[in-house]
Amino acid sequence: MAAITLLTDFGTSDSYVAEVKGVLLGICPDAVLVDVSHAVQPGDVRAGAYLLGRAWFRFPRGTVHLVVVDPGVGTARAALALRAHGHGFVGPDNGLFTPVLRDAQVEIVTLPLPPSASPTFQGRDLFAPAAAALARGTPLAALGPPFRGMPERLTYTEPRYEGKSIVGEIVYVDRFGTLITNLTPELVPPYAVLEVEGLRIGPLGRTFADVPTGGLVAYVGSGGAVEIAVRDGSAARRLGMGVGGRIRARLG
Amino acid sequence: MAAITLLTDFGTSDSYVAEVKGVLLGICPDAVLVDVSHAVQPGDVRAGAYLLGRAWFRFPRGTVHLVVVDPGVGTARAALALRAHGHGFVGPDNGLFTPVLRDAQVEIVTLPLPPSASPTFQGRDLFAPAAAALARGTPLAALGPPFRGMPERLTYTEPRYEGKSIVGEIVYVDRFGTLITNLTPELVPPYAVLEVEGLRIGPLGRTFADVPTGGLVAYVGSGGAVEIAVRDGSAARRLGMGVGGRIRARLG
Amino acid sequence: MAAITLLTDFGTSDSYVAEVKGVLLGICPDAVLVDVSHAVQPGDVRAGAYLLGRAWFRFPRGTVHLVVVDPGVGTARAALALRAHGHGFVGPDNGLFTPVLRDAQVEIVTLPLPPSASPTFQGRDLFAPAAAALARGTPLAALGPPFRGMPERLTYTEPRYEGKSIVGEIVYVDRFGTLITNLTPELVPPYAVLEVEGLRIGPLGRTFADVPTGGLVAYVGSGGAVEIAVRDGSAARRLGMGVGGRIRARLG
Repeated sequence: MAAITLLTDFGTSDSYVAEVKGVLLGICPDAVLVDVSHAVQPGDVRAGAYLLGRAWFRFPRGTVHLVVVDPGVGTARAALALRAHGHGFVGPDNGLFTPVLRDAQVEIVTLPLPPSASPTFQGRDLFAPAAAALARGTPLAALGPPFRGMPERLTYTEPRYEGKSIVGEIVYVDRFGTLITNLTPELVPPYAVLEVEGLRIGPLGRTFADVPTGGLVAYVGSGGAVEIAVRDGSAARRLGMGVGGRIRARLG
Repeated sequence: MAAITLLTDFGTSDSYVAEVKGVLLGICPDAVLVDVSHAVQPGDVRAGAYLLGRAWFRFPRGTVHLVVVDPGVGTARAALALRAHGHGFVGPDNGLFTPVLRDAQVEIVTLPLPPSASPTFQGRDLFAPAAAALARGTPLAALGPPFRGMPERLTYTEPRYEGKSIVGEIVYVDRFGTLITNLTPELVPPYAVLEVEGLRIGPLGRTFADVPTGGLVAYVGSGGAVEIAVRDGSAARRLGMGVGGRIRARLG
Repeated sequence: MAAITLLTDFGTSDSYVAEVKGVLLGICPDAVLVDVSHAVQPGDVRAGAYLLGRAWFRFPRGTVHLVVVDPGVGTARAALALRAHGHGFVGPDNGLFTPVLRDAQVEIVTLPLPPSASPTFQGRDLFAPAAAALARGTPLAALGPPFRGMPERLTYTEPRYEGKSIVGEIVYVDRFGTLITNLTPELVPPYAVLEVEGLRIGPLGRTFADVPTGGLVAYVGSGGAVEIAVRDGSAARRLGMGVGGRIRARLG
């Protein structure tokens, strides 16, 4: 029994996710279907890649991840199925798979477009059948010819040194208003003092429970990166910051 | 192992969907439960019927579809279980099943109301037990007496000719702000020019990827009807249009 | 095949619920995962307890309920796994389990914190592994030492007599804007007249279908408590009332 996860920008109001699941169950009736998120902002490939990078490796080997945040649907961008780290992945070649490709031995095929596929809903007509086939045990090579060239990868702004500081940025904001940055604990020694927008937050704490209600705190979050939160509140709202906002760690 | 789909206006914040699923699993523990949508606006039977019409036939034969958008719960409207096209359907007799009844051989029974059923939550106390019974293989006829008369059907405004134009209307707006109309490609020849609110959109394209970002385009959507979209944007917001808005195809 | 329900304040936009589900399926691959709700307002333990109290007993015996509304994550509050009424429950000791503990024979253990657990995401690193172990059939006693003392219980304002009235309060507002109170039918005889904010609603009806569209009605809801609704509308919006608002039943 294989799991198939679904990560899209389809929302959950319309029938789109269900149409995909109907196709999946039609081909692989005993698949365990798990929604990662369907609330990615339409076309926000970066957010899709972030969520995929956090979620995929929590699932058992053999899981197939169907990822469709695809503003280029109907264009010439390639459609991919790949196998890496013992997991399967299916989706458009637009950078979504960046976090999976890092340090991985990857086998990639191009999915041929079925003539009957809707040019606006390849999630249902192209990617879902491929994901279900993988979940059933169809070998990757049977899904299409080997992919030539390099899959798209997103480029990220890396933290950089500015004098005696290291400057990073916010890469994701979650539903709690927690600001997740691209700083990692290796870059932020215990004596470093964190700042956003000139506001001093202090050295890395352990968790938001270290400060009183309403307090602002930085700590290493559950995804391994430095986060800024307000205990029982929203750091995004308090600080008026979002993706791309800067965070500074003063090292001396 | 049978699938049961759920389509309601219950939302996903409260415990209502889970109460229904608890009942389903209590009767049919190995059912595969798939949410179609719970975000139908309260009582919007037309939207429920639209979503059901798009989703049901994507699922394997034998799937049972539990559909509860039921503003008349607790009134004398009948409660139905039906079998059509090899699928099962359970829900109130208020027009929800209109897209299923078209051209179908249908067997319908009336579900008797258990005395203990809550008059405000028949989704849990009346429809869920029936759906679970069907999914377990209980014959339809065992669920209640044959339904007498004709089930309710929604009436739709059909596209109509106005001089050298055909005029249709918007029947659904999805989360992307795409306007889905009641025009079908058979009605709109390649030389026809589409217009909304006097704004010229042009002949049918193939997909929103045919226009640049921000461009407006009409094409045959993944549900088989003419849609109007803005690439990487929202046609509903751009045009200020919603369900019931008019679309014109000039034929000469 | 055991069911595991999930009730959290994680929302469904981020990867958090999926990370939990990945852990669950890694340990118990054939678990049936059912979402109760992830839309509890961040840290709203009372709403979490309300939803758990409505949902848990609808599921078959043997179901495990993973409940994580945990504003105290990372503090010294205990982490619990318990067995009551033939169901399993896992979550923080902050009052969430109040509705389950009532009149129950309960066996409770304390879950030891794995050294590698994220101090901000024990739902994934502490509670999910325990829930999955229970679902697999691991005995409760194998998960940790017996819990000493009494688990936290929420205290509720009880309805009280004021002269010839009984006064209750609103404990939950659902997506339809229905106001769910702490009055039970035993407290409200058929001759009692219900009032909110000085506005007369009338005696208990049977369902909102008893009044015309737009009408205001009180009745015994599907959870067994007195509710106030507007037919085809929102009582919360109409009356401008929410949790904590008062309802009066005049008895003479």
